[in-house]
Amino acid sequence: MRLSISREEILERQQKLYQRLAAEKVDCAVLFSVTDIFYLTNFHFRPSERPIALVLDSTQKTHLLVPHLEYDHAKEYANVDHVHYYPEYPGLRHPMEYLKDILIENKFENKVVGLDAAGYSSSKGYRGPKVADLITAKLETIAGWVEEMRFVKSEAEIELIKESCRWGNLAHRLLQKYSKPGLSEIEITSKASTEATMAMIETLGPDYKPHGRTAYAIFRGQVGKMSAFPHAVTQNLILKRGDTLVTGAAADVWGYHSELERTMFVQEVSKEQEKYFNHMYEAQEVAFNAIIPGVPCSDVEKQVQAYFKESGITHLVSHHTGHNIGLLGHEAPFLDLGDETIIQPGMVFTVEPGIYVRGLGGFRHSDTVLVTDTGIEMLTFYPRDLESMICH
Amino acid sequence: MRLSISREEILERQQKLYQRLAAEKVDCAVLFSVTDIFYLTNFHFRPSERPIALVLDSTQKTHLLVPHLEYDHAKEYANVDHVHYYPEYPGLRHPMEYLKDILIENKFENKVVGLDAAGYSSSKGYRGPKVADLITAKLETIAGWVEEMRFVKSEAEIELIKESCRWGNLAHRLLQKYSKPGLSEIEITSKASTEATMAMIETLGPDYKPHGRTAYAIFRGQVGKMSAFPHAVTQNLILKRGDTLVTGAAADVWGYHSELERTMFVQEVSKEQEKYFNHMYEAQEVAFNAIIPGVPCSDVEKQVQAYFKESGITHLVSHHTGHNIGLLGHEAPFLDLGDETIIQPGMVFTVEPGIYVRGLGGFRHSDTVLVTDTGIEMLTFYPRDLESMICH
Repeated sequence: MRLSISREEILERQQKLYQRLAAEKVDCAVLFSVTDIFYLTNFHFRPSERPIALVLDSTQKTHLLVPHLEYDHAKEYANVDHVHYYPEYPGLRHPMEYLKDILIENKFENKVVGLDAAGYSSSKGYRGPKVADLITAKLETIAGWVEEMRFVKSEAEIELIKESCRWGNLAHRLLQKYSKPGLSEIEITSKASTEATMAMIETLGPDYKPHGRTAYAIFRGQVGKMSAFPHAVTQNLILKRGDTLVTGAAADVWGYHSELERTMFVQEVSKEQEKYFNHMYEAQEVAFNAIIPGVPCSDVEKQVQAYFKESGITHLVSHHTGHNIGLLGHEAPFLDLGDETIIQPGMVFTVEPGIYVRGLGGFRHSDTVLVTDTGIEMLTFYPRDLESMICH
Repeated sequence: MRLSISREEILERQQKLYQRLAAEKVDCAVLFSVTDIFYLTNFHFRPSERPIALVLDSTQKTHLLVPHLEYDHAKEYANVDHVHYYPEYPGLRHPMEYLKDILIENKFENKVVGLDAAGYSSSKGYRGPKVADLITAKLETIAGWVEEMRFVKSEAEIELIKESCRWGNLAHRLLQKYSKPGLSEIEITSKASTEATMAMIETLGPDYKPHGRTAYAIFRGQVGKMSAFPHAVTQNLILKRGDTLVTGAAADVWGYHSELERTMFVQEVSKEQEKYFNHMYEAQEVAFNAIIPGVPCSDVEKQVQAYFKESGITHLVSHHTGHNIGLLGHEAPFLDLGDETIIQPGMVFTVEPGIYVRGLGGFRHSDTVLVTDTGIEMLTFYPRDLESMICH
């Protein structure tokens, strides 16, 4: 089993981007997106105030500009033709001056230059000029081009996502096992996550390189009444009998993610909890059936919303049905009324319609599904039925 | 012990920003920075493709725009005058149209409007217009204003950072105890982090609300020869006798961070390792003594670089001495040749000059220090000497 993306696949991705640049008469390009740079080079790094840029010149050579502290690291791992570095940020000479050198040496002036952003940006204290301040060229936005390449997954990517699902499943199984009244959410999630991580690294061995979190299962504060906040944050809450729990579990595998979320109940479930659980379950079934290649994403959401409307619970719904997933936990396109992207085989979506009842709890399962030629293949495989969702 | 920032302190921060807006004749403002919005409102949330904005109107009322799924959450936690929401992203009507409604209702048109960014941005599939496309107004950048307010920490902030140091120290102690030849870095870090987290939550109880990682200690792949990559990433490496290790440990406390890093050795240390360790140790001493209120940040870096130069090891150095730390792991200002910010009491810096020897390893301690009226107070308190750095 291969736990990475091959150099060949990386070079194919670069070729595909060069082809689109050529087709749209863009001579060369500068990219700042950390995710897209990883996708195009296999260079994984910790983004910071120190800028990084991938430069694609008009002779189809790739250049990576990194801070000095990443130079050896980039030389070793990045699939690019040239690695350049600047001493430090802010430094005596601004890093963007070094980018300017590369652009001028490689004849970007007066060319049509594609940019994914006006310049580098980071919340970590970075300040700097735009590319427009560095060179005289015809600048065009290519924002989203690489993200669009990421919409449809390759076989290798799907294998990595499946591997993520496998270890998320184990972490979730342990989470359910350890969910008992009187214990803190942090205690339960730490124990489940550590045990699943240990099993994962013992099984996969040194070929496994996480680029984010190893196997984990969490509540993020969605415990009891707090589960009614769909995007709550960890609250260090204590579980009690009858609580509704909304979970999340996955593992990072070479940068790829999956999503497994379940609505569970501590020891017992009330009639009211059961009612909303069943509506959520049915809405997810509606979505599974609605995902068909060739239809727009918005169709899925329309069908789910129609189900909620006929059930009289539209007022309890506060988010769309799902999103694409891959190198980021959330990616476009979205299963949303406003997204007209056509669903294609090879896309990977989360399916997670939710119902939130203030004072009672939240009800949301999330499964990760692969679009096939005719419908979907479930990539997550944890039980979904009510009986299996009770923590004893 | 208070494990949060009070509402009063949050309102003081808002007042301070209003005062600067008034002083610089900016009538009102729109902020998109997730960190700054937390700093100004205490509203902690998971950023995504769904935009969020904090609006400060000319009558000194604050407005928070959130997606529907964050509405109840924001009503409960955000210290603002008004919470507004839009249904979903992308949605049938773009979220920025709802921002436009707020700006028009609150008479932003034809005013001087301060912006921290041209518009909302996110790597997670977001696309949207700039504020300039929404209203006719005189737009001015206020990028960095709130970040500058964050340079000097309040007493409450310093207490939270000290609490972070305390639990980072425990996690690091456990990491050192469990660092044995033949074990994977992931196994050691999972065990140490989980045990420290358990002790932390049992001690602090339900008042402790993490906004990020609970107590942790990690290697991030800086094991053996790989430790020569200063910003390496987790590699799932197996420790062996004689390896150089570069660690990191901390805990998130109400969003605040600290930094404790140590260079350790597995069971034994060679003469060569000792030589570079001693240089790193001395360079850190130089930096500690150089941090004095009233001098520019660049002075500290100059003194450290002078030490490296006279020791003949400048070629082994690839990054500056340190950075401010608080709500983000890295914040401006930087202990860097190019940063002329004047050091002030209440600033909190990491002090971490590093030496990297390809084929041998990396040598870097990082301590978190508070600038006092006369020099520094060490906030991290883990041993630094060579003898204490050997893992038995």
